[in-house]
Amino acid sequence: MDATAIRHDTITANGVALHVARLGHGRPLVLLHGWPEFWLTWEPVMRRLAGRFELIAPDLRGFGASEKPDALPSAKAGAEVHADDVVALLDALGLDRVGVVGHDVGAYVGQALGRAAPQRLTGLFTFNCPYPGIGPRLAAPEMLAEIWYQSYHVKPFAAAQVGASREGCRLYIGHFLHHWAGGNPAAFDDVLDAFTDNFLAPGNLQGGFNWYVSSQAGRLAMIRGEAPVLPPIAVPTCVRWGVSDPLFPYAWTDRLGETFSDLDLAPMPGVGHFPHREDPDRAAAEIARFFERLPA
Amino acid sequence: MDATAIRHDTITANGVALHVARLGHGRPLVLLHGWPEFWLTWEPVMRRLAGRFELIAPDLRGFGASEKPDALPSAKAGAEVHADDVVALLDALGLDRVGVVGHDVGAYVGQALGRAAPQRLTGLFTFNCPYPGIGPRLAAPEMLAEIWYQSYHVKPFAAAQVGASREGCRLYIGHFLHHWAGGNPAAFDDVLDAFTDNFLAPGNLQGGFNWYVSSQAGRLAMIRGEAPVLPPIAVPTCVRWGVSDPLFPYAWTDRLGETFSDLDLAPMPGVGHFPHREDPDRAAAEIARFFERLPA
Repeated sequence: MDATAIRHDTITANGVALHVARLGHGRPLVLLHGWPEFWLTWEPVMRRLAGRFELIAPDLRGFGASEKPDALPSAKAGAEVHADDVVALLDALGLDRVGVVGHDVGAYVGQALGRAAPQRLTGLFTFNCPYPGIGPRLAAPEMLAEIWYQSYHVKPFAAAQVGASREGCRLYIGHFLHHWAGGNPAAFDDVLDAFTDNFLAPGNLQGGFNWYVSSQAGRLAMIRGEAPVLPPIAVPTCVRWGVSDPLFPYAWTDRLGETFSDLDLAPMPGVGHFPHREDPDRAAAEIARFFERLPA
Repeated sequence: MDATAIRHDTITANGVALHVARLGHGRPLVLLHGWPEFWLTWEPVMRRLAGRFELIAPDLRGFGASEKPDALPSAKAGAEVHADDVVALLDALGLDRVGVVGHDVGAYVGQALGRAAPQRLTGLFTFNCPYPGIGPRLAAPEMLAEIWYQSYHVKPFAAAQVGASREGCRLYIGHFLHHWAGGNPAAFDDVLDAFTDNFLAPGNLQGGFNWYVSSQAGRLAMIRGEAPVLPPIAVPTCVRWGVSDPLFPYAWTDRLGETFSDLDLAPMPGVGHFPHREDPDRAAAEIARFFERLPA
């Protein structure tokens, strides 16, 4: 058996068949992807950490090779649902406590886990962490050119339009992978075809867009300054924030302390929205450093 | 010769070859379309008015069968440029004064004409008239689900993405024609294929999107509440506003008096963004009533 081979399994958890990619041995780390991503976004980091950790990268429901329980636009794919899926996945895998690494959608899921099941987490690590303290800044006039897709993705015709042709899908997905990778726009060039094929698989575009359908009400409440005030998350948290992210400026880190009471925050110069793909060496080193100093 | 046949000509004006559709005899009315439209959007109104007016419906530069001088994203297709085109078109046609009917983009062009060449207009009629007094309301949180496309259309990849397949283009264009026609969502069903074919013609998607590229700076200034204060337009103006328009609520008519000093405003119940297609009988009657009471 190839020691470097990624293991692929389908594990039913919370009533949904989740595809899980795994590699390595050691303390378990669950890697939660964002949009437009799936488990493969973590592969460079997984290979760099496999000697020290067991990396567990599920496709969130609706994404990748995981089940799409809602073929039509659905609001039943929010952070709390994904968090329930992850807890059930830990149960199915016999894992009591894990480290969680989240990015984009996965960072929201990490926050939901930090509230719903803090006893299952050794620590929480996120890149460029969207969180309630961003507030009305998300929809400031200069941000409209960035956030338009969040409104498009809730349209019932969007998945059919984006998926009407391979070229149209490649242009659409490729735009975000390129534009948001502000420190290394070529970061996804080698996997752009794989990402395109992935989102063209039946149900995957709508499966991803259901995140936006599900989170729309909360997003609008935040933009209106009406996001509910939640108790802070006490799980030890490390946030590394790529400073070349056009979607989430580093200035927006100013209120992270309201969400995370045990926070280690630092900027990551030279990378944008996808530190794990733009500079996987540094991303893996940051992840390892954080989790290795936590109690086992 | 069929007296009901629409005459099609290509007329070079302001250095651009403009396609012009004409029908009828009488006082000249120039009909200026919006996005995603072209001259054909006016056909039902043209047929109803042909016995009393000469209807002159150009495709704006970049649209329909008119020339696309800017194949790439270009900011040289704003209201003032289109207004210069129209003035040159009047010169080429030997028309001293005309009535102007504008909608959507065409309503902006009508305002530019009302400032640059008021002596050439007998009157100005618009449906659902976007104008500076809308102000920051355009980007209120509840409007984000409506205005996202304005940000998408400025992206360099948008025309290629929307036009990557006929089905993708049809879904995209069809969405707006259906959604905005709040009083009669089926208003464009009989011409949806013609509209799709039109926007799939080489350069037409980018040609239309160049309106958004050109007007983006002004739109952002308006959203920031920094739109320049312009002197009011003194040309007699009639605004009829479909009250079922999800994009431009009737409440936004409250400041029209700042832009038009000689204004006849009334709501049109039962229609949305496209009165000329949703209820062409009433739309034609309103146009005729306004221009027939003006001095010849």
